[in-house]
Amino acid sequence: MTRFSSATKNLRSSEIRDLMSLATKPGIISFAGGMPGNDLFPIKEIDTIYNTLTVAEKQVAMQYGPTNGLPALLESLGEFLDQKGLPVSENRLLITTGSLQAINILAKAFIDRNDTIIVENPTFIGALSAFKSYQADVISVPVGNDGMSIEHLEKAIHGAPKDPKFLYITPSFHNPAGILYSAEAKNNLITFMTGKEIPIIEDDAYSELFFHPEDADRLKPIKAINPKGIDVCYTGSFSKIIGPGLRLGWMLVPQHIYEKCELIKQSFDACSPTFSQVLADKFLRTGAIYPYLDFIRTEYALRANAMFDALESHLPQYVEWVRPRGGFYIWLQLPEGADAAAILKIAIEKGAVFVTGKTFDPEGKKNNCMRISYCNTSPEMIRIGIPIIAEAIRNICG
Amino acid sequence: MTRFSSATKNLRSSEIRDLMSLATKPGIISFAGGMPGNDLFPIKEIDTIYNTLTVAEKQVAMQYGPTNGLPALLESLGEFLDQKGLPVSENRLLITTGSLQAINILAKAFIDRNDTIIVENPTFIGALSAFKSYQADVISVPVGNDGMSIEHLEKAIHGAPKDPKFLYITPSFHNPAGILYSAEAKNNLITFMTGKEIPIIEDDAYSELFFHPEDADRLKPIKAINPKGIDVCYTGSFSKIIGPGLRLGWMLVPQHIYEKCELIKQSFDACSPTFSQVLADKFLRTGAIYPYLDFIRTEYALRANAMFDALESHLPQYVEWVRPRGGFYIWLQLPEGADAAAILKIAIEKGAVFVTGKTFDPEGKKNNCMRISYCNTSPEMIRIGIPIIAEAIRNICG
Repeated sequence: MTRFSSATKNLRSSEIRDLMSLATKPGIISFAGGMPGNDLFPIKEIDTIYNTLTVAEKQVAMQYGPTNGLPALLESLGEFLDQKGLPVSENRLLITTGSLQAINILAKAFIDRNDTIIVENPTFIGALSAFKSYQADVISVPVGNDGMSIEHLEKAIHGAPKDPKFLYITPSFHNPAGILYSAEAKNNLITFMTGKEIPIIEDDAYSELFFHPEDADRLKPIKAINPKGIDVCYTGSFSKIIGPGLRLGWMLVPQHIYEKCELIKQSFDACSPTFSQVLADKFLRTGAIYPYLDFIRTEYALRANAMFDALESHLPQYVEWVRPRGGFYIWLQLPEGADAAAILKIAIEKGAVFVTGKTFDPEGKKNNCMRISYCNTSPEMIRIGIPIIAEAIRNICG
Repeated sequence: MTRFSSATKNLRSSEIRDLMSLATKPGIISFAGGMPGNDLFPIKEIDTIYNTLTVAEKQVAMQYGPTNGLPALLESLGEFLDQKGLPVSENRLLITTGSLQAINILAKAFIDRNDTIIVENPTFIGALSAFKSYQADVISVPVGNDGMSIEHLEKAIHGAPKDPKFLYITPSFHNPAGILYSAEAKNNLITFMTGKEIPIIEDDAYSELFFHPEDADRLKPIKAINPKGIDVCYTGSFSKIIGPGLRLGWMLVPQHIYEKCELIKQSFDACSPTFSQVLADKFLRTGAIYPYLDFIRTEYALRANAMFDALESHLPQYVEWVRPRGGFYIWLQLPEGADAAAILKIAIEKGAVFVTGKTFDPEGKKNNCMRISYCNTSPEMIRIGIPIIAEAIRNICG
């Protein structure tokens, strides 16, 4: 009889693996993935970067690096984030193995068994699995089209069995809800959280993927607003702006939190892949990232627009959704009592796949919503796939 | 007041970071590092591999991969380990972000707060920091020149406040002790552990770096002996056989342990760097690894021999040490009461650096031993640096 730790009981079986394998199943039109399209990666740019590295730079790429990150990358990423308005100089930057690792490290720094934490509903499944693996008591607060309801948040905090250890949110192009917090919602949240001694983990993997440059103000991270009296732990990722295969993310956090996180990172994997860090540094440093960001913003907007058109033409009127202003995802609200799992079953039979909303519900209950993504599917395939989804919805909901 | 988790109290301050920065300090002869020499990396081979990748392969390299590893790498690595005699087909292979992550995942799978685990003394500091971060009660058992003393192990298990969750060992070219378990020591350990229901974590980062091909039998991992009735969790790494910058390792474990570990891995970083996995797969698949292993074995043997000669010429007779038969490290035993920290201070002033034994003692006490490594220093530098170390020893110990 193998005696596993109690933490292993809280691991969600193979839901994420099943989701991944479904999303990449050949011969099916996938609206299930959260990955960039293979055709969109900056292969030529990486070729140029690799082939202009000196031997000494390649040796650095093959060697261990400092736990907090390659000095060159800390510098170039620091500058990139500084230009985004983030308070880089008064915080510490830690390079992580994807931003999921940043979230996991923060979870380990804060969560003791049965501690309360607060998340959005719906929420990012990767973060949820990390929080549950530390045996957190997860309380969720609904997000609307503009952000989190302060009223519900207040109730959640007052009703919590313990003072919450942190609040985890994704204000920009939420996964899965697709929404962008309004400036007002962020300000209200800041006002409410000030002096509460509850750190905010602000997950910002998507904010570069905006469709409307005029949203600049609304896209400003809470970390960039830099509210006094709140510890904001900001996490970001290269996965959506270069490629997830590099496995690079970061956190920007106050010094006293950084100190704990660096030690946890040290015991997790010593340092993040140096090979990837050398490439990412050059991608930033040579400025290759700027035209590339323009290219993918245009391309994702094209895919999103194809999906908006297809949804408007084919979806029944009773399905509620809003046009995301960037990112990867659209969230469909079905009528009360609708069974998204049954819809998925039919859709797969007909050749299209999405993710049921239940996957992103911390309570694992809500079954009348679904996430469809346009990031990894061409406009042509979107125009073929959306009618399949719409028909499957009609089959179940009438 | 930030309320961190109780786990953060068990994190060893900045010892590892200080060690790393000391080991790579410019202008000093370093016997402190555990990293391969920069000049030894297979840069040409990686260049050839990168530049013969197809666009489709580069796209795969930039994308997320399955949590358990890239299918191609699982296949080529599985074959590599099979040729090493490991029972690949009756176990499961999981690619990890360095073998430290494999060890950390196993720690999370087994350790609840205050659980007892058993390690060697001395032991690998990375593993120790992982175990302590899960708040394990770490009991250590001395290793001699041939392996772990069964008598001491028996005492440790009987004296433990709880049944130990696992035994962690490094039988091949131990870090830091440099020793290779004898075949007899391994057999005795297997006999003793059979039926105890205590899994063994066998850390095997160094066994490819042997100097004596006639040691083949002695180099056989316990996992390859495949003892019935013991769950052996075998961990390995590409860090010493390609380059640590790829951040790739693995575990080979029984199915029921694999299932927990895959879920933990999923919540840690979703998957290991795909870019690195594509390169490592080609390095194995093209057979480039075999001549490269011959090259580094020869080179490390050259460095080790230069160090043996220098130690024999310069060390005082009272310093005890054995010639390692492979790996990176030599362990020096100083007389009882000697202060390795004082020796280090003098050595640094004179331009050479090593690591004090205390660093590797789970109890953090033993100060009369030191680790010197030859992996990252040329024979010329070894011949200059060892007399400095020897003189510093004489200064303190007489």
